[in-house]
Amino acid sequence: MEKQDLGRTEIASLGEFGLIEHLTKNFEIQNPSSHRGIGDDAAVIDNTGFLTVVSTDLLVEGVHFDLMYVPLKHLGYKSVVVNLSDIYAMNAQPKQITVSIAVSNRFSVEALDEFYEGVKLACKFYGVDLVGGDTTSSQKGFLISVTAIGQAKEEELVYRSGAKPGDLLCVTGDLGSAYLGLQILEREKQLYLSNPGIQPDMEEQDYLLGRFLKPEARKDMIDIFRQNKLVPTAMMDVSDGISSDLMHICKQSGVGAIIEEVGVPIHNDAKMQALKFKLDPLTCALNGGEDYELLFTVSPDDIEKIRLMPDIYIMGEITERSEGVKLHSSGGKIHDLVAQGWKHF
Amino acid sequence: MEKQDLGRTEIASLGEFGLIEHLTKNFEIQNPSSHRGIGDDAAVIDNTGFLTVVSTDLLVEGVHFDLMYVPLKHLGYKSVVVNLSDIYAMNAQPKQITVSIAVSNRFSVEALDEFYEGVKLACKFYGVDLVGGDTTSSQKGFLISVTAIGQAKEEELVYRSGAKPGDLLCVTGDLGSAYLGLQILEREKQLYLSNPGIQPDMEEQDYLLGRFLKPEARKDMIDIFRQNKLVPTAMMDVSDGISSDLMHICKQSGVGAIIEEVGVPIHNDAKMQALKFKLDPLTCALNGGEDYELLFTVSPDDIEKIRLMPDIYIMGEITERSEGVKLHSSGGKIHDLVAQGWKHF
Repeated sequence: MEKQDLGRTEIASLGEFGLIEHLTKNFEIQNPSSHRGIGDDAAVIDNTGFLTVVSTDLLVEGVHFDLMYVPLKHLGYKSVVVNLSDIYAMNAQPKQITVSIAVSNRFSVEALDEFYEGVKLACKFYGVDLVGGDTTSSQKGFLISVTAIGQAKEEELVYRSGAKPGDLLCVTGDLGSAYLGLQILEREKQLYLSNPGIQPDMEEQDYLLGRFLKPEARKDMIDIFRQNKLVPTAMMDVSDGISSDLMHICKQSGVGAIIEEVGVPIHNDAKMQALKFKLDPLTCALNGGEDYELLFTVSPDDIEKIRLMPDIYIMGEITERSEGVKLHSSGGKIHDLVAQGWKHF
Repeated sequence: MEKQDLGRTEIASLGEFGLIEHLTKNFEIQNPSSHRGIGDDAAVIDNTGFLTVVSTDLLVEGVHFDLMYVPLKHLGYKSVVVNLSDIYAMNAQPKQITVSIAVSNRFSVEALDEFYEGVKLACKFYGVDLVGGDTTSSQKGFLISVTAIGQAKEEELVYRSGAKPGDLLCVTGDLGSAYLGLQILEREKQLYLSNPGIQPDMEEQDYLLGRFLKPEARKDMIDIFRQNKLVPTAMMDVSDGISSDLMHICKQSGVGAIIEEVGVPIHNDAKMQALKFKLDPLTCALNGGEDYELLFTVSPDDIEKIRLMPDIYIMGEITERSEGVKLHSSGGKIHDLVAQGWKHF
């Protein structure tokens, strides 16, 4: 909850085109496929020989983020990452992004600079080029629309629809940490609102806060898949929570699934924090959302490959559609898995 | 200012995924390059052998449109058209679009259906496929983000940067009509606000109102260019007004320009309406914006081709940079052309 003195330049003093030029002047082109970037009617991307993959997200202040506890630089970084995550979830490589923002006059140029600093960091880290966007005013709040464009060879693309009964159900990383990071920030916000003099208590919460504020897309996993010649049968990223996301794979593949409670990866910090909040750690892991891990299925023939890869957890199995989507609890009971997810409406 | 009874289904009753399914179920894929559409992490577009062209716009209620006089169906249509216009302005063919919206709970599903009906009409008319998007809630107002993706052969692409001294400066259609259509709607809105019982006086204004409410992108012109093997040296679409848009071509091409007042195409309805409003028709034509015509330059060698094409007006000439950007009035005087454009900040 730090406040920085960034100075204040009114956006109106630059004008729309001046603002675009100002915000994007330090972005360098990293991909040869980025034929022409910002400054014409449209970006030009040369994808000859590859399929083009496109993903887009719209983020709204007060719905998707709260500027009271999300620093603008982190917001810029995360806005890009959540889109790249969708491209990786196709087993594709993101190459270009467009970023559009609408802001009210409550924001200064310096505030937008912070946001674009985060965008730039993400571009650099993931090797993508900013090739376009739109900058306009809003009557209220901060709005962000990001479109990511990637490439893949046809035989590498992984859809949500390819899971088959008998496939292993896997997930990268761990689940529920981002949700618990958000709960900590929400608690501190409420405490601050009721008593602005109070000091936030966020010690030893770095891991959970980082998972929410600065998530990473699993580019590393896509690279490991390629190195090991592994092509999952179905894949998506974990944005709404496993219980909701898995439903998409099951519905589009026409299959059922069973998750083993003992196979659900939960970080120790998340477990401890859930208990402090009197929440069930498993519920947080299954319904939390915003983890941006990869949920995927692989043929049982690939089990040896999977076992040798870091940070992958076999969480269950794909079953026949008629068997539904179930959770096998460590107590031995079988429950229906109910999609709760994150609802914006 | 008609009101329609559309019934009312709360958006919350469908849920986010139900809403996406509901809104996009009647869209058919029209392009073989649309390999995979809505329903996965990302759309998949096969552009093998062509360059990919991408353009994006963010439209905000109260900034870019006023729902008091813009019907939602027109808004959906126009939101698509303004993006396609950017792709045509590259001399490229749009193939796919993504449409994201954020809406407050003031909107019903039926209202969104109207909007998507307009999106669908535009998709059909221009032969583009809706392949993705995002649907979320907003705290206030209606927000639209559209990204258009197109294709072109490398040798056909036209940038803003290719104009040379001696080139002819041309424009399609006529200028200023959309601006005057907007002025009529603004006047009627003010009258209505001060006296809700009053009947709007919009007779014989169909042309001007249509130019603002239902603009078309000049796909027809791009097709005619191709049929006649004409490749402009520079091109952009008229969104902010010629005086502002021409500055972009001049800046990026490193040239000057002179516009002949007698060459500026103004529709008779626009001329009459400007005079009724005690406005200078030429000022409306040069600064009006939202015409979505094509402003382009061609080599003087192509003058015979241009003369035989319908609806193209030679408006002036490209000059050396040192000569600046000027207007040669019909009274014989030379003025500096000042970019006023449309400012959102």
